[in-house]
Amino acid sequence: MQYVGIDLGGTGIAAGVVNEAHEIIGRAALKTLPERPFEAIVRDMAEAVRTALARAGLAEGDVAAIGIGVPGAVDPAAGTVYLSSNLGWHDVDLRAEMGRYFSLPVRLDNDANCAALAESVLGASRGTSSSILITIGTGIGAGMVVNGRVWSGAFGMAGEIGHTTLVPDGVPCACGRSGCLECYCSATALVRMARQAWMTFRPGAGYVDRAGGPERLTAKDVIDAARAGDAQAERVFRAYARYVAIMCDNAFNFLDPEIVVLGGGVSKAGPFLLDTVRGYLTQSEMGEARPPYRLELARLDNDAGLIGAALVAREV
Amino acid sequence: MQYVGIDLGGTGIAAGVVNEAHEIIGRAALKTLPERPFEAIVRDMAEAVRTALARAGLAEGDVAAIGIGVPGAVDPAAGTVYLSSNLGWHDVDLRAEMGRYFSLPVRLDNDANCAALAESVLGASRGTSSSILITIGTGIGAGMVVNGRVWSGAFGMAGEIGHTTLVPDGVPCACGRSGCLECYCSATALVRMARQAWMTFRPGAGYVDRAGGPERLTAKDVIDAARAGDAQAERVFRAYARYVAIMCDNAFNFLDPEIVVLGGGVSKAGPFLLDTVRGYLTQSEMGEARPPYRLELARLDNDAGLIGAALVAREV
Repeated sequence: MQYVGIDLGGTGIAAGVVNEAHEIIGRAALKTLPERPFEAIVRDMAEAVRTALARAGLAEGDVAAIGIGVPGAVDPAAGTVYLSSNLGWHDVDLRAEMGRYFSLPVRLDNDANCAALAESVLGASRGTSSSILITIGTGIGAGMVVNGRVWSGAFGMAGEIGHTTLVPDGVPCACGRSGCLECYCSATALVRMARQAWMTFRPGAGYVDRAGGPERLTAKDVIDAARAGDAQAERVFRAYARYVAIMCDNAFNFLDPEIVVLGGGVSKAGPFLLDTVRGYLTQSEMGEARPPYRLELARLDNDAGLIGAALVAREV
Repeated sequence: MQYVGIDLGGTGIAAGVVNEAHEIIGRAALKTLPERPFEAIVRDMAEAVRTALARAGLAEGDVAAIGIGVPGAVDPAAGTVYLSSNLGWHDVDLRAEMGRYFSLPVRLDNDANCAALAESVLGASRGTSSSILITIGTGIGAGMVVNGRVWSGAFGMAGEIGHTTLVPDGVPCACGRSGCLECYCSATALVRMARQAWMTFRPGAGYVDRAGGPERLTAKDVIDAARAGDAQAERVFRAYARYVAIMCDNAFNFLDPEIVVLGGGVSKAGPFLLDTVRGYLTQSEMGEARPPYRLELARLDNDAGLIGAALVAREV
């Protein structure tokens, strides 16, 4: 059977029809324009679904359900969105609103959860029944799969590991607290650490000058310089990778999943990141009684969210 | 239907027959004497089960299954114990060994998981389908329930939150790492903090002298002194309670359970602990979109492990 998946982001809406082989056999994309009213955005989501169906040569009756990945906290059972800062939504009934356009079952989940489910079905965590996907970008997101099913949390907030405290009274966080994991493990954190090193040790950071100054520096600039052997960038990157390893250790010790998967922009650094982080992982107290932790890079690209949303639809 | 529950500890073995109302209708207790061979301990466990059955006036055929709570990492599916430091067990087939004495199905799980399940069925987290029980004693243990079922982890290690890092490069931990949560949130940590305060600020800590000196100080001494208004003990206790609050915040942000339950020796401090910790909890970023975190004290006492083991048996 086919399912429709919708990857709803702050920038774009991507809808697709996904077949049993997890291939997207028809798709459509639109701008989200999140400043519009909720109803207008949902109307466009419905429009994108219709276009994707038409491009797949299918009618509404040919698909079993619609799944939606939402950037925010959702109540999958009620079909509502508690809060999405990206979309400016607060307590909206997304399932009911979609129900105005289709008679199909509609299921929603958090976008990180959808991506985690997609990885666990056809990506890096394929074949496992427990996993966490941690996305490292501007912030830190996570989705977890337990007993083969997404665990969204009691209030759609599971996996908010970016705002667990890593350093009591540490770096101030945008959330109002201090020392959140996100302040040490995000791309933003890597850039901050590089800027601090530059301010402390300059000259000697050609990569900062090449980037056009500290305010233009990106995580990719730091990683590329570290990879190329710049000593200062390497020191910064190693300190950063150690924090990422602590984050992974904490996820292993808390949930004991079969695998932790790293996704998001920073994971594009590939084996350079993975190998450095692995070098800082501390293994379980159980020693040889437990197989070594499995830490891998995400395998699915931009379509993970869409395919994951279709997989969520399948769980109806 | 009745089930047998066994609470296996490093000190004692408690077996009981538990009825549908979760009452223990027959019980037996023996010393564990963990220096003995594995087979001898299991023989005594079987003996305790037989005694408990006889005291309940039942035969083996009157119960449906046997559940065992083990102090260590277990593989519930395989019925084996990966590692129990308390018992000196390493990769033993507990289910097979018990099978030599009974033809009943045997199921095992970690003892913290059993207690968490018992709390979620008839204790503080009754009526919820997701919860964490965190036990605060010499160390920190945790058991979690997700979707109404215990989540033991892929390798029986879920809930090892005592060894998640709370302070990178912090206080050295017995596990060989540094800054583990256990070094800030256990009863041992509270005593260490009180001793440090005493060394720094003495005189002025009558409670340390009354305890017979810093080396005799217990967590209860510190808590009692703080409750009685000793200024130094109060400062220490507040600093400690703040770490406990960070631990609870982290559990909420990671797993988003309906409730976090505090058990173990330190939880005997009751509302004095609970209210102080609650004062340091930071609420969710979602603000009013999410109901406030529910943090409660465990309600079941010493029988939680035994009843929880019987509940695990029911899951066969």
